[in-house]
Amino acid sequence: MARNSIGKNITITSFGESHGDSVGVVIDGFPSNFTIDLNALQSFVDRRKPGQSDITTPRKEADTVKILSGFYNGKSLGSPIAIVIPNLDAKPADYEALKDVYRPGHADWLYQEKYQHRDHRGGGRSSARITAGWVAAGALAIQYLKQQGIQVTAWVNQVWTIQAPDAVNTPSPDSIEHNKVRCWHPETADEMIAAISQAKNDGDSLGGVIRCVVDGMPAGVGEPVFGKLQAILGLYLLNINAVKGIAFGDGFSSSTMKGSEHNDELTMVEGRIQGVSNHAGGIVGGMSTGDAIQMDVAFKPTSTIALTQQTVDVNGNQVELSATGRHDPCVLPRAVPIIEAMTALAIMDLLIETR
Amino acid sequence: MARNSIGKNITITSFGESHGDSVGVVIDGFPSNFTIDLNALQSFVDRRKPGQSDITTPRKEADTVKILSGFYNGKSLGSPIAIVIPNLDAKPADYEALKDVYRPGHADWLYQEKYQHRDHRGGGRSSARITAGWVAAGALAIQYLKQQGIQVTAWVNQVWTIQAPDAVNTPSPDSIEHNKVRCWHPETADEMIAAISQAKNDGDSLGGVIRCVVDGMPAGVGEPVFGKLQAILGLYLLNINAVKGIAFGDGFSSSTMKGSEHNDELTMVEGRIQGVSNHAGGIVGGMSTGDAIQMDVAFKPTSTIALTQQTVDVNGNQVELSATGRHDPCVLPRAVPIIEAMTALAIMDLLIETR
Amino acid sequence: MARNSIGKNITITSFGESHGDSVGVVIDGFPSNFTIDLNALQSFVDRRKPGQSDITTPRKEADTVKILSGFYNGKSLGSPIAIVIPNLDAKPADYEALKDVYRPGHADWLYQEKYQHRDHRGGGRSSARITAGWVAAGALAIQYLKQQGIQVTAWVNQVWTIQAPDAVNTPSPDSIEHNKVRCWHPETADEMIAAISQAKNDGDSLGGVIRCVVDGMPAGVGEPVFGKLQAILGLYLLNINAVKGIAFGDGFSSSTMKGSEHNDELTMVEGRIQGVSNHAGGIVGGMSTGDAIQMDVAFKPTSTIALTQQTVDVNGNQVELSATGRHDPCVLPRAVPIIEAMTALAIMDLLIETR
Amino acid sequence: MARNSIGKNITITSFGESHGDSVGVVIDGFPSNFTIDLNALQSFVDRRKPGQSDITTPRKEADTVKILSGFYNGKSLGSPIAIVIPNLDAKPADYEALKDVYRPGHADWLYQEKYQHRDHRGGGRSSARITAGWVAAGALAIQYLKQQGIQVTAWVNQVWTIQAPDAVNTPSPDSIEHNKVRCWHPETADEMIAAISQAKNDGDSLGGVIRCVVDGMPAGVGEPVFGKLQAILGLYLLNINAVKGIAFGDGFSSSTMKGSEHNDELTMVEGRIQGVSNHAGGIVGGMSTGDAIQMDVAFKPTSTIALTQQTVDVNGNQVELSATGRHDPCVLPRAVPIIEAMTALAIMDLLIETR
Repeated sequence: MARNSIGKNITITSFGESHGDSVGVVIDGFPSNFTIDLNALQSFVDRRKPGQSDITTPRKEADTVKILSGFYNGKSLGSPIAIVIPNLDAKPADYEALKDVYRPGHADWLYQEKYQHRDHRGGGRSSARITAGWVAAGALAIQYLKQQGIQVTAWVNQVWTIQAPDAVNTPSPDSIEHNKVRCWHPETADEMIAAISQAKNDGDSLGGVIRCVVDGMPAGVGEPVFGKLQAILGLYLLNINAVKGIAFGDGFSSSTMKGSEHNDELTMVEGRIQGVSNHAGGIVGGMSTGDAIQMDVAFKPTSTIALTQQTVDVNGNQVELSATGRHDPCVLPRAVPIIEAMTALAIMDLLIETR
Repeated sequence: MARNSIGKNITITSFGESHGDSVGVVIDGFPSNFTIDLNALQSFVDRRKPGQSDITTPRKEADTVKILSGFYNGKSLGSPIAIVIPNLDAKPADYEALKDVYRPGHADWLYQEKYQHRDHRGGGRSSARITAGWVAAGALAIQYLKQQGIQVTAWVNQVWTIQAPDAVNTPSPDSIEHNKVRCWHPETADEMIAAISQAKNDGDSLGGVIRCVVDGMPAGVGEPVFGKLQAILGLYLLNINAVKGIAFGDGFSSSTMKGSEHNDELTMVEGRIQGVSNHAGGIVGGMSTGDAIQMDVAFKPTSTIALTQQTVDVNGNQVELSATGRHDPCVLPRAVPIIEAMTALAIMDLLIETR
Repeated sequence: MARNSIGKNITITSFGESHGDSVGVVIDGFPSNFTIDLNALQSFVDRRKPGQSDITTPRKEADTVKILSGFYNGKSLGSPIAIVIPNLDAKPADYEALKDVYRPGHADWLYQEKYQHRDHRGGGRSSARITAGWVAAGALAIQYLKQQGIQVTAWVNQVWTIQAPDAVNTPSPDSIEHNKVRCWHPETADEMIAAISQAKNDGDSLGGVIRCVVDGMPAGVGEPVFGKLQAILGLYLLNINAVKGIAFGDGFSSSTMKGSEHNDELTMVEGRIQGVSNHAGGIVGGMSTGDAIQMDVAFKPTSTIALTQQTVDVNGNQVELSATGRHDPCVLPRAVPIIEAMTALAIMDLLIETR
Repeated sequence: MARNSIGKNITITSFGESHGDSVGVVIDGFPSNFTIDLNALQSFVDRRKPGQSDITTPRKEADTVKILSGFYNGKSLGSPIAIVIPNLDAKPADYEALKDVYRPGHADWLYQEKYQHRDHRGGGRSSARITAGWVAAGALAIQYLKQQGIQVTAWVNQVWTIQAPDAVNTPSPDSIEHNKVRCWHPETADEMIAAISQAKNDGDSLGGVIRCVVDGMPAGVGEPVFGKLQAILGLYLLNINAVKGIAFGDGFSSSTMKGSEHNDELTMVEGRIQGVSNHAGGIVGGMSTGDAIQMDVAFKPTSTIALTQQTVDVNGNQVELSATGRHDPCVLPRAVPIIEAMTALAIMDLLIETR
């Protein structure tokens, strides 16, 4: 299939540009006769919505989800669920100045070279706005997984050099949603917010790390050669804008360990095999072990900044650019539901295959 | 398609178990009328071969590549190239003791639960021996990319806590192959070898990091939504045994940077757009920029160790295990060609699509 | 991928139910920078529109095509083109009587068994109304193929036992559109129309055969093992509602021939190899020969009829049914653009791969 | 995936050329822990073997199946099953004369144009010999389906103009295997054999029709939009060499029927819905009804004939050709197991998805 779809058993197809009519998604393979909680769907999408706080982009979008198909009398039909989210606060005029200038850190010039025609308004297809559709699809996957006893929880674990302490247990959703940066640890959250505000004032931007934990996994999910659980998760999460790295369990730290330190010894708990520790992050041999899956996802700082940068224009002239469009000084708070959504879709795809 | 195949335009299908008749691969989509250098193919596969030095497993395999199809009169036919590599030094008896014990860090028990029947000999399908087929396929992809001016170079950049200095230019293949650990920096290589030997003597094992650079990339390779270059590379590389993380360009370090530090400003060089720096690792918006692609791949320490570990047996009894089979105290030296092979296959897949 | 998408290089994803909000399609893989003729697109979709004559269903739908994405300043962007066609004349009340009765010849009861929940209104997802989206997608493929010099022409060649004479040359679009049954031969068309009117009056329905010809094919399109041109065409066309058979070239007649009669001898015409005859229908060894492709597609009579039939209801009771909903006494006139659309999509998919 | 693989849930990948080392197949997605009957596997493959009677090609091949992987201790492992069948009686010298001449009805010249390099010996990749691998894969699918209570039965129903009477019940395998043409009706079989012998003596060839019936299907198998049971069957069967058409149930005859004649009225039998008749051939709305599936598959006459034909050579010269290589005067007797194999694989693929 072409490259705007992802998933074997539950496939999502993404469409839309940042300042076109709408962005959306078609979800194919979602089980029939499943009661969809529309309020929960909309609330989940709202977490990604622009303009939600003073540390996010000021673009104002209701991001109201409209379901076109696959849904009847409160329940899924088993047929494709098409979802459309209109672009209402599109301000193409703001981007007139960028029509002829290629922004550093962005793919403007690569789109032009590859497609010979592009929608420059707000980044067009390259805008993270298109993830609104992914998040809507993921919201359904999360409802499905919840019914199976599986819970996906992500939070901002690091902004710039500010890092939260390691959580002993998976943080509660409330503790994460309690502040606008989506870090469960209040003191760290305050520091992160201050750093983002400072970067915003400086016309600069910050990167960071989102941690994601999946609780309630059954053992054996994942296909052990080219459908390894970590590889499918990697495929989904590395397709998210601004992500530059992913690691599982002890991740890059595991490379500095000895086998005797890293191996999770096995024991029996209530008649089932379980690891005494979980350095592996819940995945061994490409399959879930039943222990919590843990991942870290690294984001680069937002490419759009107000500070002056050197770049080139469409005619190949060297020019200076100080961006004025609406953007996030740090994408991580709004990326939390994106990580959860894509994680849920990846796991649901493999879970269906396992059954 | 089922999960032992990977790739859209050039698809490889893997088969084989560690101690069965043979391991192999079918490569479909390789261009026709391409002159294949059989010596270069065999030499590339030899780099992954067991028993190549005293810091690798002592298993002795010739790993002689046999081509069954798709090749006639020295050139590819455009039809599938099936390759078989026999298992000659299989010692199933060595593994008799492991028939009933689940090794920590391995997927033995997960295979049993998922498939209800498994080949326990040397890990069966979960053995890294099956990557011999992938390496043979990748050797062909490397020949193809070379013809297009693209060069893939990987080396061991870190073993345990011992890290090579950052290479200013891509190290030469000779400098990498010059020592048995495959690190271009001689002094670091010596330290790494000593550490691996020590771990071997201790009955323990070490992890590490392989760095991979791709030079000569044209701009615009990669499909910018769900076929992002970094995501497809992630899919291929995270499917390699023992890999626990992957990062592109500045990777996890980029999360501690500001946009003004990380953004690669643009300039014109000989009529083409180019980055002034390359923090992005040669990928922006899911597409190659034409600058060198750079990745770091983290490996956990080998799960099989001689030290005594707690585990369970097939009957659910708690037992102690001290592994005696043949294995690598550190998988990284032999994993270098695997990383190169999978990188080449991923890039070739997207390159064909771009053309 | 899940089963509401079709195509490897140009993938269409279908969504929608007959009486839901809308039906639609997402087209992924369509080349960028292609000038789309919106009038031609709408006109093509209009040929499938209900209510176009007194021998089609009286349901009235404007079937106005709305493009949501992938299109900017008159040209394609290379990103997915999402198209929505609203359901305006949905009369769900008409179908209230059918909520609990399974129609013979329809899949009502199979949907219920497979999905445990269904949209019974107008057949829901099983309605041929969902082909409106396919036709919109095919209209774009036809514009693309036209630019490549390839022309797809279909017509009603048989209704019930009334058959048109064999056309010596491909009939002109005008001759086909000249009458409401879409048969190029005026006298046969008159007979067909009379037969359909009679069936309508009788509360009955008729089947028939659509013939499709593709002119201007280059040689070598089609992948000769599991991507044979005839197999991919079969996959696309056998997915059209009510189709019960497909044949290429001399088709079933070829089974009664000798090799010396059927083989197309080869000759040189203007420096290119060409068949002296075209019994093969333009396809040999799974690849196009450059001669005209010719196919016959058999349709069963419409399953919905006004005559009384024995059937069962949702409670397993034997009941009588006389259908009253709006339907076509013969689907073939409106199926002509569906055949052209799906043929064009299949060929475009393989053509992209060949290049 | 590339085009030498077929199937979503159970994928087979075909490789090999007629006169290369071997032909083979990799079967991925076959369930684990399934006891494979190796004798039944070999016997099934033997039915396709060349040289089995005086009305088939005289090429002598043992066609002994060798399993390389995925099989241990008598049972499947759930990993890919690679099967190799050596080419032993390859007589490349016989084909020396054909190196430079393009055979009418064959794809020789299309291979040359598409691939610029071909293996001309015995047709290379275009030879029906490669179906030996498909038949081996299908033999496993047949064993699997049998365990599920599903039986696939094919026979030669027509050779040239000689047609068997309609079978009231599915003919027994014994009655079909009882004669060398594989027609269950002895008198018709005799006539067919005489006609084939005559054609052979005349240096000519004959086409025909194979009928295939699937008994024991559960209802609801098939995915009702682009995974319709008839479309997937069409995809598999139209990929078989020399097939020019396929029809389901009443097939092309249904096009001459009225709805009141063709519709299968519904009734309850032992608490389950069932058709009173089976004009639909066991498929409605793309799903199995639980009634027997019935298909007719049309084959063109063998393209290779001894009679003199006009053709062109690789230099574009007009030449005469009288073929002398070994070939079948009528492919149908040996095609019966190919039809059964591909039918079984198609059904198994959809059956796995339904569960």
